[in-house]
Amino acid sequence: MTTTITVAPSNLIANLNWRYATKAFDSSKTISLEVWNALEETLILTPSSCGLQPWKFIVVTGPETKARLRPHSWNQSQVTDCSHYVVFASLLKITESDVDKFLARTVEVRGCTLESLQSFRGMVVGEVIHGPRSKVAAEWAVRQAYIALGNFMTAAALLQVDTCPMEGFVPAEYDKILGLPEKGLTATVCCAAGYRSETDKYARLPKVRFTASDVVEHITV
Amino acid sequence: MTTTITVAPSNLIANLNWRYATKAFDSSKTISLEVWNALEETLILTPSSCGLQPWKFIVVTGPETKARLRPHSWNQSQVTDCSHYVVFASLLKITESDVDKFLARTVEVRGCTLESLQSFRGMVVGEVIHGPRSKVAAEWAVRQAYIALGNFMTAAALLQVDTCPMEGFVPAEYDKILGLPEKGLTATVCCAAGYRSETDKYARLPKVRFTASDVVEHITV
Repeated sequence: MTTTITVAPSNLIANLNWRYATKAFDSSKTISLEVWNALEETLILTPSSCGLQPWKFIVVTGPETKARLRPHSWNQSQVTDCSHYVVFASLLKITESDVDKFLARTVEVRGCTLESLQSFRGMVVGEVIHGPRSKVAAEWAVRQAYIALGNFMTAAALLQVDTCPMEGFVPAEYDKILGLPEKGLTATVCCAAGYRSETDKYARLPKVRFTASDVVEHITV
Repeated sequence: MTTTITVAPSNLIANLNWRYATKAFDSSKTISLEVWNALEETLILTPSSCGLQPWKFIVVTGPETKARLRPHSWNQSQVTDCSHYVVFASLLKITESDVDKFLARTVEVRGCTLESLQSFRGMVVGEVIHGPRSKVAAEWAVRQAYIALGNFMTAAALLQVDTCPMEGFVPAEYDKILGLPEKGLTATVCCAAGYRSETDKYARLPKVRFTASDVVEHITV
């Protein structure tokens, strides 16, 4: 088993306070391969409901594609100036074949039999494909993508990589440019990653969060 | 400005590999105050669209309330055996007063004038309250809560705290028990946090994730 090194709580919080929604990226700075590989692995390791991973992460580093996406992103400069622009795409529909793909991967990784997974299969198919969640399966897939977004931004902050989450874009245009519908996917949310420009005035503004008493409630009984 | 300490990429990945959806918690182990305070601060620091923070984090440590929630959670033992059970609640509706509450907080934290925020106010109100997102505002709030969930699980892993995300619960029953609707909130997703039991066989199973070539696409042009 891998030995893990605990991060100090104060270190974690310092990094989360350091991060902010970066408005101006320094386009001359690129995330190194070592750091990017860790962030990509972070995306892959994101937990998802039932383990289904109903997503694809489109990592755009090419200037041409970035330039094509930008006008459909309220013309925000983050799209073109960041190092790695990640489009979180989610499945438009969850089918039995998605479940079976996950089960095949489970057999491959864990060396168990497919038969031993049948009761799990029945539960997932009953719940997600034919059950109460089937009508909202696309939205359920979107929610999972947002777990990946949260995971990604936190991991990036710990590696001192700046990010800007982006909901202000036109999914239909992104889908066309990235060829997503033919893969059963749609663009759900995006995140620019790279390094802040020294001129970004937002970097110096205090972070605005509600107080603990506003957003946290403790139930101790 | 706070000095931040960079976490090594390999350390981050080791911690994310260490984490898993904990099925059996050791009910004798409690998260220390220092560590919990950092995790609570992590929740508060979660980024959200337009900064609106359309959520409340209900932290249940009381055995009575945990016991009342468990039957509405597929009777899963994580609810009662974990140290801190977090219910992520999201706003049922986003109103102008939610925006104004955020603006008042911005004035408080940044010392700017309310007048200087009017164009931002117009944008948010136009978009979220009266614009295209108004019809899906509740779902939009839910998505933001999932960012918090992703952030929380990653932060916990870095502090060597075990977690189990939980979607298998009955929101209407949670809402009643926690008194959420009268606060304009609904239970969206949950996460048990604490320490794994030594008997949890799932701790030793290899993690099942699709390969990079399955879930990551690079666009370099």
